[in-house]
Amino acid sequence: MIADVLIIIKPPLIYIEDSGEEIGRGVYSTHGFFKDEIVEVAPVSLLDVNFEMFPKELQTRVYNWGFLTKSNIKHAIAMGYGSMYNHSDYPNLRYEADTNFEVIRYIALRNIAPNEQLTIHYDQYDGIHEHLEDHWFNRNKIQKRDIG
Amino acid sequence: MIADVLIIIKPPLIYIEDSGEEIGRGVYSTHGFFKDEIVEVAPVSLLDVNFEMFPKELQTRVYNWGFLTKSNIKHAIAMGYGSMYNHSDYPNLRYEADTNFEVIRYIALRNIAPNEQLTIHYDQYDGIHEHLEDHWFNRNKIQKRDIG
Repeated sequence: MIADVLIIIKPPLIYIEDSGEEIGRGVYSTHGFFKDEIVEVAPVSLLDVNFEMFPKELQTRVYNWGFLTKSNIKHAIAMGYGSMYNHSDYPNLRYEADTNFEVIRYIALRNIAPNEQLTIHYDQYDGIHEHLEDHWFNRNKIQKRDIG
Repeated sequence: MIADVLIIIKPPLIYIEDSGEEIGRGVYSTHGFFKDEIVEVAPVSLLDVNFEMFPKELQTRVYNWGFLTKSNIKHAIAMGYGSMYNHSDYPNLRYEADTNFEVIRYIALRNIAPNEQLTIHYDQYDGIHEHLEDHWFNRNKIQKRDIG
């Protein structure tokens, strides 16, 4: 149920380009962002489905909506460019899920220069956005690919 | 395998807003587009998985990549806003899949005014972008929702 309030979602000031690395495409800033600025508001598609029901190729893209929002709906796929951000142990974005508007917001963790690759931590938890443990990759038997 | 040529994908000149209808959110033009203008180039995530393996909620979002490209990879999920376009029997966009760049391009079928809802035909085939038959919905046992 989407909140009964006008919300207009605009595309972010980013671009997609091949990263030149094995990991493939990445998302880059078109211009600079200040710390705490919202970089993207991505609409999500909610999927009340267990993780193992997703095709393997989708598992790296799926957000743990139930965990992020403490709600009953288990997963979400982010549209816009929310599924295109690569993982970093030292990301420059954090994200927060909003059940009212069915969006995920991506927010700058520090000042970001133009043409920097924008990254998130796939195992963001408890407000900690940087860590070196690989729980998420290990738990889901997904090979870690890290843009560093 | 993504083409070894520089391609930069920029977000489209669109916005997302609640349509005010049961169907939920829709994609709208920020400004006018001319007939044959490219409205969006959406990166895709390729998924060599049978249709029935997708969670029901995802089946309305999945593109028949194998059919569109005559390639062996069966399906794709479009990022950007490619999964957000609603269906119309008289759409104002057509789409074409590009295996070299792993993108789907959305192209204006006619001149489009600012703030028009942008629509596609979910069963686009054989270059025909407008028709009233419901093969796709019937075949996949998905209830048709049409913005008209």
